[in-house]
Amino acid sequence: VLRSGPRDTIADVRDVNVGHVTLADGAIQTGVTVIRPHGGDPYRQPLPAASTVVNGFGKTLGLVQLDELGTLESPIALTNTFAVGTIATAMIRHAVAANPRIGRELPTVNPVVAECNDGWLNDLQSFAVEERHYVQAFDAATAEFAQGAVGAGRGMSCFELKGGIGSASRIAHTRDEHVVGALVLANFGRLRQLTIGGVAVARTPDTAMVSQPEMGSIIVVLATDAPVDARQLRRIAKRSAAGIARTGSNFAHGSGDIAIAFSTHPSPRTREGGAERDADSPSRGARGEGWGEGLRDAALDPLFDAAAEATEQAIVHALFAAETVRGRDGHARVAIIERFPDWRARLGVATPS
Amino acid sequence: VLRSGPRDTIADVRDVNVGHVTLADGAIQTGVTVIRPHGGDPYRQPLPAASTVVNGFGKTLGLVQLDELGTLESPIALTNTFAVGTIATAMIRHAVAANPRIGRELPTVNPVVAECNDGWLNDLQSFAVEERHYVQAFDAATAEFAQGAVGAGRGMSCFELKGGIGSASRIAHTRDEHVVGALVLANFGRLRQLTIGGVAVARTPDTAMVSQPEMGSIIVVLATDAPVDARQLRRIAKRSAAGIARTGSNFAHGSGDIAIAFSTHPSPRTREGGAERDADSPSRGARGEGWGEGLRDAALDPLFDAAAEATEQAIVHALFAAETVRGRDGHARVAIIERFPDWRARLGVATPS
Amino acid sequence: VLRSGPRDTIADVRDVNVGHVTLADGAIQTGVTVIRPHGGDPYRQPLPAASTVVNGFGKTLGLVQLDELGTLESPIALTNTFAVGTIATAMIRHAVAANPRIGRELPTVNPVVAECNDGWLNDLQSFAVEERHYVQAFDAATAEFAQGAVGAGRGMSCFELKGGIGSASRIAHTRDEHVVGALVLANFGRLRQLTIGGVAVARTPDTAMVSQPEMGSIIVVLATDAPVDARQLRRIAKRSAAGIARTGSNFAHGSGDIAIAFSTHPSPRTREGGAERDADSPSRGARGEGWGEGLRDAALDPLFDAAAEATEQAIVHALFAAETVRGRDGHARVAIIERFPDWRARLGVATPS
Amino acid sequence: VLRSGPRDTIADVRDVNVGHVTLADGAIQTGVTVIRPHGGDPYRQPLPAASTVVNGFGKTLGLVQLDELGTLESPIALTNTFAVGTIATAMIRHAVAANPRIGRELPTVNPVVAECNDGWLNDLQSFAVEERHYVQAFDAATAEFAQGAVGAGRGMSCFELKGGIGSASRIAHTRDEHVVGALVLANFGRLRQLTIGGVAVARTPDTAMVSQPEMGSIIVVLATDAPVDARQLRRIAKRSAAGIARTGSNFAHGSGDIAIAFSTHPSPRTREGGAERDADSPSRGARGEGWGEGLRDAALDPLFDAAAEATEQAIVHALFAAETVRGRDGHARVAIIERFPDWRARLGVATPS
Repeated sequence: VLRSGPRDTIADVRDVNVGHVTLADGAIQTGVTVIRPHGGDPYRQPLPAASTVVNGFGKTLGLVQLDELGTLESPIALTNTFAVGTIATAMIRHAVAANPRIGRELPTVNPVVAECNDGWLNDLQSFAVEERHYVQAFDAATAEFAQGAVGAGRGMSCFELKGGIGSASRIAHTRDEHVVGALVLANFGRLRQLTIGGVAVARTPDTAMVSQPEMGSIIVVLATDAPVDARQLRRIAKRSAAGIARTGSNFAHGSGDIAIAFSTHPSPRTREGGAERDADSPSRGARGEGWGEGLRDAALDPLFDAAAEATEQAIVHALFAAETVRGRDGHARVAIIERFPDWRARLGVATPS
Repeated sequence: VLRSGPRDTIADVRDVNVGHVTLADGAIQTGVTVIRPHGGDPYRQPLPAASTVVNGFGKTLGLVQLDELGTLESPIALTNTFAVGTIATAMIRHAVAANPRIGRELPTVNPVVAECNDGWLNDLQSFAVEERHYVQAFDAATAEFAQGAVGAGRGMSCFELKGGIGSASRIAHTRDEHVVGALVLANFGRLRQLTIGGVAVARTPDTAMVSQPEMGSIIVVLATDAPVDARQLRRIAKRSAAGIARTGSNFAHGSGDIAIAFSTHPSPRTREGGAERDADSPSRGARGEGWGEGLRDAALDPLFDAAAEATEQAIVHALFAAETVRGRDGHARVAIIERFPDWRARLGVATPS
Repeated sequence: VLRSGPRDTIADVRDVNVGHVTLADGAIQTGVTVIRPHGGDPYRQPLPAASTVVNGFGKTLGLVQLDELGTLESPIALTNTFAVGTIATAMIRHAVAANPRIGRELPTVNPVVAECNDGWLNDLQSFAVEERHYVQAFDAATAEFAQGAVGAGRGMSCFELKGGIGSASRIAHTRDEHVVGALVLANFGRLRQLTIGGVAVARTPDTAMVSQPEMGSIIVVLATDAPVDARQLRRIAKRSAAGIARTGSNFAHGSGDIAIAFSTHPSPRTREGGAERDADSPSRGARGEGWGEGLRDAALDPLFDAAAEATEQAIVHALFAAETVRGRDGHARVAIIERFPDWRARLGVATPS
Repeated sequence: VLRSGPRDTIADVRDVNVGHVTLADGAIQTGVTVIRPHGGDPYRQPLPAASTVVNGFGKTLGLVQLDELGTLESPIALTNTFAVGTIATAMIRHAVAANPRIGRELPTVNPVVAECNDGWLNDLQSFAVEERHYVQAFDAATAEFAQGAVGAGRGMSCFELKGGIGSASRIAHTRDEHVVGALVLANFGRLRQLTIGGVAVARTPDTAMVSQPEMGSIIVVLATDAPVDARQLRRIAKRSAAGIARTGSNFAHGSGDIAIAFSTHPSPRTREGGAERDADSPSRGARGEGWGEGLRDAALDPLFDAAAEATEQAIVHALFAAETVRGRDGHARVAIIERFPDWRARLGVATPS
């Protein structure tokens, strides 16, 4: 319904970049995706942020502090379930390298790492993801990033088809024009549930597909340039549930359905303010002096609509951008464009870059 | 997708009855709906229960204690926004009449009253709902209750059409067969969003309709006979959001989207146990001795699917059961069957009784 | 530890006034207390606010919307458990009288009513509180209000002694000097737990006192003039738990321990901005344009300390200001100054006005 | 007030064992502590569990899923802030070694890792904690564990004195006799706040002590053998806040105050039931068939009191068991028994083993 931004990805929110490292070698089909919320260092210039847990069968790290302080102070990394610890350590080391006083005169850093279980295609027990992959994905971050079976999405399944990374954006008209971008790591759902544009793709249970009921999950990252605070961002994050639901999911028991939202709006203190946190100002509020243009809650509905639509579209993009992947023990996930070749045209789904 | 129960209403959950009082006289278009969770007295025989707030622009009473104790100890009453206090007082008085030691030797009672704003059709400032209307609705409770512009639904609007009370049920196959019933007070949404069975009913904004953006809300009451506890009921309640989303809503800012779920399963202590709470046992756990058959969380997915589908269907029933209502200041809400007369047949929506 | 304000009550927060109506006649020992957050109309000039539920055995009305929007748009009324509905209706009627477009062109109002159970002394079943008592308490609001067995505190018990209304304030030095004021409705605790200034008052269980285990509760209202938003106010509200704990309570099962915090800081839009909400701006954010001076979270510790201390002191004030009250069925609660006459001097507790 | 168990530690809850690895070498003053909830494998025999976040300035891993499912399926590991990732990876590897189908046919495991910041004494940037330290601490688990400056407590500071690991237990008399054990990682507070047995130890700010305001935190682990479910365990966990408050803390901004509670009661399904999770029963509910003896909420008060007292006592034990530690850059934390040598006798604090 709403218009998308020029790229129709989360990178339509200015300064947001995404980088992937993809590991694809036989039984290893996994990776890392890093969302950089702006071009600077979020530890020095944190952003207002919030999360919501639609269903909590997941192992995300960093949400306790993010929700208490309403602040994102690291990039957001996505990876497989067994790699959360490794990536968290990598993120701490990376932040320390840029800010050598962290953990000494300055507070520690709160890395945000979310995960889905790619164990159907990927041999989780190989622990293939290493710390250096975080740095590579961070360094690769760009506004022109790939979607589908890449990065953390390499081994993911969605509706028993090939899932992975998808992204989309929508323009919201409130007082001013703002953009809401979504990036999903889509790894959930049963084929018989899959709904695109309101139409069930394969309503009849397909007995030929192997089901693995408990291994779902979806991570939704929402970015906006609207001047909203952490409480409002939580409200925006909750709307991702509407987008997920419209693709057919009922938030299954075994699924970790988690959304994280942040705002890139240049509140003076946090973004343009002091370049470095110092000892007499060791902590930080994401909103500070001069946040003069904050939106009222009554103006949020266009952002809510944009968040729901962008999430739904991002999931569709993840499906249509994905290629078929074969992984461990002969397991495979077939791309939707192979299994239902007529659907792209039928639905008028744009080809993601 | 799932099969409905014989009535396709919340009354397919055995013992659940619903009663209405409808006030329809010129500028007064409002009422009261009472859901009785079982044929006995919930104060003496409380049930496990939980709630979830999808969007909290609402004035529901009773959720703080319901969530802390995981217990429903009163019927659930629905009414208009200005009548919450009056109905709460009526419920306390009614419980005291049945249990004269309440507030003396026995604890007070926690009435659960939810509301939507029917101020477009109804003159809220008339304060037309009186305490006696609660008793009348309670006494009228039956398994064969009406839907549409009745009871608390009399003055409600849904997708800028006539909304109100709707109900549906779905059968879930877990270890045993269980039923999930939904009853909604539907008072939310914009016409351009309305989606039935995946199809947008009126995608183009209809400039002839008067919009009143902030006055939405939906209350969802879910009942099941499955042996689930309060934590699991909260998980079930959250799935109502998927059903709401599929009708087109993104949970607007001004909407109070609240779901309450309870289980009627006869846990021995609470349902068949001591007929009266006594002084040395003044409080109560909704789950107690002999709750031998509790479902594991891994078995909940069919209940989740049933909750989402029953909620979506209940909203559709509310629309198709509603008749056109004219109220205060010449305001009107047209029934969907008048405005889009072909949709009932087109969608194969059954006529609710 | 911290210094108190000149009055050592919540009225040290400029513009905050408190009014009581006390009903004391034989078996009727109850009342209403109204906290006015500022001299204007909170519906037109809402304030940032948040709540926390330490233990949820309570029937407070209004917290769902208060927490969703982070906004207080009514006075806060305290009363007995059975009177919540009546007072809510009175508050709606009072807001409508001042704003005749409420519920028509303007949104409904969210009254905040909290309660404790005074059923030991007061005959709850008499339903003695009437709507007019709210208006009387509202009109009586002043900075020089009474404490102890007055207003909603008339029938309350605390540590098996006479409880009721208490208030205190503390000065917090952050970037600037701010005051945090607390007002409690104290109706909780067992005598053997009572701790004042770290000393157990009556460690040995006193078998001569009648125990009524489940009927506790404490409502804490915190006000501050510091420029803090709703998320920060929730953090402040949570510190009231430390103050309650230091008087000896472990937040008993049957106690409704609830805290509500608001800020009176004159954020331009909400306090000095548009005098009336109008149709094209029907909702409101409590924080708006020009909230230029917001505190960072790292500056909150002095406010946290002040909130905890003011809460503890307010409870002590409630005890020492209370007189012995006799109520229904010969029940009595003895004032601490009668039962432990040496404690006032011993502890150096100031006599509240 | 309440009686302690024979050991006055968390190991009074039968089957609960604790193991430490202590790293103490110059600038490296840190370690790992592992709490094993029972002698078996929690992945195969999960326990009902819940958490509460009093203040969320912390990086704990595993709470999202623990709270969603109400289940603990791993030991609980404590370590320093920078080591969370490493220990999480170690825990996954350890669980996979014991259950080689994890991440293949069986669901992934949810490791629970909590942390405090020991950066004042310990050189966090050395990343001294390695995966093998987890296994060593796990293997060292015993009922007769040390307290004070050991394990994860090695580098911690508490009230500007030496903090660390402390433990205590209290007996609760409900329907039956149950024990509540607490283990704390104590790393919070200012000296001027320290209160023991209601008495301020050093009310005057001690200007000779170096303050480092933002680096606090306390992790509380509560165990009980009472038959309580996850919702009730959350209520129990919240009472730890009362114990923390009585030692003088107001839950400072920069403190991660987090409590996790579990029950070891042998609910048949989860503890004595099927020895291995298998493919057709891949998930698990912590409460299952035959949980016949669950406590009602009205019986919880003795457990609440025990949780608060055991937490307070465990903090005192941490202080009095700790020895003076010198670490990086000449930093030191002096033991309370050195700095205030008369306090042990004065308060009658027992010497922890």
